[in-house]
Amino acid sequence: MERAELSLTGWGPADNAHELSNSVRKWLRREIGWNPRVTPPEAVASVPTAATRLPDSTSAALIEIVGDDHVRTDGPSRLRRGAGRSYLDLIRRRGGDISGLPDAVVLPGSHDEVLSVLRRCVADDIAVVPFGGGTGVVGGLTGGADEHRAVVSLDVARLNAIDSIDAKSLLVTAGPGLRGPEFESRMARYGLTLGHFPQSYEFATLGGYAATRSAGQASTGYGRFAELVAGARLATPVGSWQVGRAPASAAGPDLLGMVLGSEGVLGVITELTLRVRPAPEAKHYEGWSFPSLPRGLEGLRQLARAELLPDIARLSDPDETRANIVMSGSAKVNSLQALLRARGHGAGCLLIVGWEADPGTVSVRRRAASSLLRRYEAVRIGRTVGQSWLANRYSGPYVRDALLDVGLLVETLETAASWSDLPEVYEATRDALIHSLSVPGKQPLVMCHVSHVYPTGASLCFTVLADRDDDRPMQQWLLAKRAATEALLSKGGVLTHHHAVGIDHAPWLSREIGDLGVAVLHAVKDRLDPTGICNPGVLFG
Amino acid sequence: MERAELSLTGWGPADNAHELSNSVRKWLRREIGWNPRVTPPEAVASVPTAATRLPDSTSAALIEIVGDDHVRTDGPSRLRRGAGRSYLDLIRRRGGDISGLPDAVVLPGSHDEVLSVLRRCVADDIAVVPFGGGTGVVGGLTGGADEHRAVVSLDVARLNAIDSIDAKSLLVTAGPGLRGPEFESRMARYGLTLGHFPQSYEFATLGGYAATRSAGQASTGYGRFAELVAGARLATPVGSWQVGRAPASAAGPDLLGMVLGSEGVLGVITELTLRVRPAPEAKHYEGWSFPSLPRGLEGLRQLARAELLPDIARLSDPDETRANIVMSGSAKVNSLQALLRARGHGAGCLLIVGWEADPGTVSVRRRAASSLLRRYEAVRIGRTVGQSWLANRYSGPYVRDALLDVGLLVETLETAASWSDLPEVYEATRDALIHSLSVPGKQPLVMCHVSHVYPTGASLCFTVLADRDDDRPMQQWLLAKRAATEALLSKGGVLTHHHAVGIDHAPWLSREIGDLGVAVLHAVKDRLDPTGICNPGVLFG
Repeated sequence: MERAELSLTGWGPADNAHELSNSVRKWLRREIGWNPRVTPPEAVASVPTAATRLPDSTSAALIEIVGDDHVRTDGPSRLRRGAGRSYLDLIRRRGGDISGLPDAVVLPGSHDEVLSVLRRCVADDIAVVPFGGGTGVVGGLTGGADEHRAVVSLDVARLNAIDSIDAKSLLVTAGPGLRGPEFESRMARYGLTLGHFPQSYEFATLGGYAATRSAGQASTGYGRFAELVAGARLATPVGSWQVGRAPASAAGPDLLGMVLGSEGVLGVITELTLRVRPAPEAKHYEGWSFPSLPRGLEGLRQLARAELLPDIARLSDPDETRANIVMSGSAKVNSLQALLRARGHGAGCLLIVGWEADPGTVSVRRRAASSLLRRYEAVRIGRTVGQSWLANRYSGPYVRDALLDVGLLVETLETAASWSDLPEVYEATRDALIHSLSVPGKQPLVMCHVSHVYPTGASLCFTVLADRDDDRPMQQWLLAKRAATEALLSKGGVLTHHHAVGIDHAPWLSREIGDLGVAVLHAVKDRLDPTGICNPGVLFG
Repeated sequence: MERAELSLTGWGPADNAHELSNSVRKWLRREIGWNPRVTPPEAVASVPTAATRLPDSTSAALIEIVGDDHVRTDGPSRLRRGAGRSYLDLIRRRGGDISGLPDAVVLPGSHDEVLSVLRRCVADDIAVVPFGGGTGVVGGLTGGADEHRAVVSLDVARLNAIDSIDAKSLLVTAGPGLRGPEFESRMARYGLTLGHFPQSYEFATLGGYAATRSAGQASTGYGRFAELVAGARLATPVGSWQVGRAPASAAGPDLLGMVLGSEGVLGVITELTLRVRPAPEAKHYEGWSFPSLPRGLEGLRQLARAELLPDIARLSDPDETRANIVMSGSAKVNSLQALLRARGHGAGCLLIVGWEADPGTVSVRRRAASSLLRRYEAVRIGRTVGQSWLANRYSGPYVRDALLDVGLLVETLETAASWSDLPEVYEATRDALIHSLSVPGKQPLVMCHVSHVYPTGASLCFTVLADRDDDRPMQQWLLAKRAATEALLSKGGVLTHHHAVGIDHAPWLSREIGDLGVAVLHAVKDRLDPTGICNPGVLFG
C-alpha cells in the first residue's frame, strides 16, 4: 500500500481540500480587512531543480552501502525532503522558490547502514539532514549547509520495523520511520496504545517526535513524547550510542534527555524503546463553556491541582471560540451560542475535554472534574462539540492550504509558562502580534488556546490570520514572529513548548538556556560530530 | 536550634540506639551462623587528624570570600565531612581509619560565594567536594584527590533559604542545604508538600537529592526526586548555569537532566526550583500478604497497568517478610503469622501500601486497588502493620549501628529492571550474594523488597546480613558487592536505582551508559570544569 504523502506546497493530498463558505469569506473581510483574491501555488514540480553537488565518488560509495534503489538524486525525491511545513516554508514553495534542496536522498535500511553513511559523509564532507515525516514547522530540514560540499537528506522511512514487543513490561522497540497511525494500528492488535496524537499525526514519524520533543493533543493525559521514551539508539559520526534504561536509573545524569530534542545535530535516531499502555476501553469527549479566559484558566489550574485533569484539555480564548463558531457555522451552533449568551457567556471560552480509560474510571473522574468545573462557572455544552473536535483534530493544516490559496497569512506559534506568568505571557504575545500585523484598514485575528495543562502551568498555542502582504510575505511574518517571541520570552514564556528550535528559533536559544547551556550542547556535539556534518545550522544557528 | 548530626561512626545520635533482643540474637545465630561478640567502634574523635594541606594563601583567600567563621580546618569539622555512610565507610571509621579527610571545610553563604570559591580553587589547584547531609552510600565524598594540592569540602548548609514560594504555580525555589524535615515544615505552613521521603530523610539535603537522583519511599506516587525538580542553578568553575523551565519546553535537549545526577562533578548546585503539591488530607497505610513473590510481583504489575498504584508500595520477599516478623517479635504478629500460614501464606510476602490524597480519592482508589489485589490472592492484614512500617520508616540505619556493634556485616544494594527481567535479576543477585558470603557453617541472610513500582518494571532493594569476617571485612563485602553487581547487570538490571554512582559504582558506569555515554559526560565536564577540580574520582572513577 502506497503511503499518502504531503503535497509539495502544502499539507495533504488534494482530496482533502477545503472550501471557504460565503459566510466565512464575508466574516474574514469584516474581521481582518481581507482583500479576497486567488493566490494559487506555483507548480513547483515543474520548476527545474539545481544540479546535484554530490560527488560521483560519494554517490557510488553510498550506493555501495544502501543499494542502488536507495540513493536518489532525482528532482521529485529531493523536493519531497527539501522543506518542512511552516508558513515560511509554504510561502517560499508556493512562490516557486525551491532553493536549499538536498543534493541527494539516502534511505538506509539498518542502524549499521546509517553508521556507514555517516562515516562516508564525514570522509567526504557531506552534511546530513535526517528526514522523518517532513511536517516540522521550525526550519529543521533547511539548515545552512554552505560550509560543506553537499547535503544528503537521510530519510529514515525504511527503519520502520517493530523490533520487539514486551507486552508484560509495556515496552516496545521500534524504528524511527514509523508513522503514528502505522504504529498505533500495530499496537491495537495487542490491545496497546502509545497515545501520541499531534496535529501532524497522519504524516509525522516516531523519530521526528523524539528528535523534536513533540507533544500531542492527549499529552496532558499520556505525557509528552519525551516521557513516552524509555530508550533510544543514536548513530553518530563516531559510533553507536544507546541511551536510557527502563524503568529508572540513578547512574549519573540523564543521557536520554540529551538525545531527545537533539534535532539531528548529534546524529540519527535509529531505534526507540517506547512506553506503551493498555488501550483505553472508553473515550469520552465533550465541550464546556467558561464565561471568560481567566475563569477558564483558573478552572484548569484547579483541575491540575486536584489531580483531576482529563487526558485532553483545550481551552480557547474568546477570539478562537468565536472563530470556531463562525467557521463551523451550523444552525445547532448558533442556537447554542444564543443559549450561552443568555447565561452571560457572550465572549465565552470553549473548553474541550477528553477522557480515555476504562468506563468506570472515566465516569468517576469525569464526575469529580465536572463538579469542580461548575464551581468555576463552566457550563457543559455536551458531546456534539467534543465529537466534532475529535473528527477535525487533524484538519487544521488542510484548512490552512485553503486559506493560503486566497491571500491569507496563517501561522501558529506556541509557548508555555507557569500559572503565575501565563496571563501576562498571553497578553504580551497577543499584543505584539496584533501590533506587528496591523496596518490601516487591516488587523490580524489572533486566536489562542491552552493545549496542554500541567500542575505548574500550561501551554499557549496562538493561531494568526491576517491579510497577506503580497509584496513582502516573508518579512511580514518574520517581524510578527520576532515581536511575539521577544514578548513571550520577556514575560517568562518558554521559546517553544512543542515545535522545537530548528533554524527559526535558533537565534533565541541562548535566551532560553543561557550561554553556558549552548556551550554544553556544543561540547557534546563536538564530541559526537567533530566535523559538524549533522544537520548544520539547526539548534545552534 | 542546633541540628542533630550523624555520629562519626554510624547514623544518628546515641539516644536512638537499638538493642537486640535475646530472641533476635538466638535467631541470628541459627540463621546465619553468627558468632556473638562485641565489636564497638573506635573513638575516632580522639584519633589525630592529618595536618591540613591547604596552602595558607588559599586559606586566606577563602576567608576573604566566605568569612573567618566559614573556613574550618579543625579535626571535628573535617571528620564530619570526610565520609559517607556506606558499610565500607563505617567499617573503615569504626576501625579508626580516618584517612582521606578533606583539608578544610568551606561554608559559602551565597551562589556568588560558591562561584568565587570555585574560581580560587581552580587557580590554586584545590579539589572541591560538595557536601550536603553526608548520608550517601556510594563513596561520593571520598573521591581520589591525589592529583590536586588539597581537598576542600564545600558544605552547602548555609545555602538554606527558601527564596520564593509560588503557591499558584506550585513552584518553590530553595537552597540545596535544606534538609527534608526543614523544607517540609516550611511547606506545611502553606498547606503544601514535596513528598520526598528517603530513608535518609532526617539528615539528607535537597542538594544531595538532586545531585544523586534520589528516590524516596513515596516516589511511586509522588515521583522520583528528578521529577520534582523544575529548575536548578549550578555554580561551575567557568560560571553560573541556570537550567530547566517550568512547565515544559521543547527548546533542544534536556539540560536539567544533565545536572540532576551529576554528583558534584560539574559544579555545585546552589538553588533548586521544586514542584510541590497540596499536602494530602488523608493518609492510609496498611499491610497485605501474598502467598508468594511471583504472585506479589504480578499483583503490583497489574496495579501499575490499571493505573491504581498506591503512593507507597513495598513488597518484601519471603526472607525479608520472615525477618521482619522475627525482628518485631510481638505476640500479635505471631498470631497473624499463624493465620497466614493457615491460608497457605507460609512463606508469604508482606506488602505495605500507602495512600495519600483527599479522603474521597483515597477511598475510591483503595477500594479499586484492593479488589485487584485480592484477584492475585492477596490477603489484607490491616492497618497495624502499615502504621508500624510508618513509625519505623527511618529506623533502618539506627538498627544497622546495633548490628555493626556485634560483629555483623549489614549492607543494602539496589537495582531496577523491567517486569520481564525482574525475576531473573532477583534470582541472580540473590544467588551471587549467597554464594559470595557463604563459608562452612555460615551463610548470609539475603532479604529483598520491591521499593518502587513503575508501569514498565520495579526496583529491588536487597539487605544483606552476615557474620563479619573480622580479618578482612572490607574485602568480604567488596567481593560480594562485585558478584552481585555483575549478576544484576548481566540480567538486565540497572547499576543503581537510587543510590547514585560515587566511586563505588564508577567501575561499572560504562557497562550502563556505554563508552560513548562516558565520553559525552567527559566532554561536558571538560567544558565546565576544565582543570578537573570538581569531585574528582566520583562518577568516572
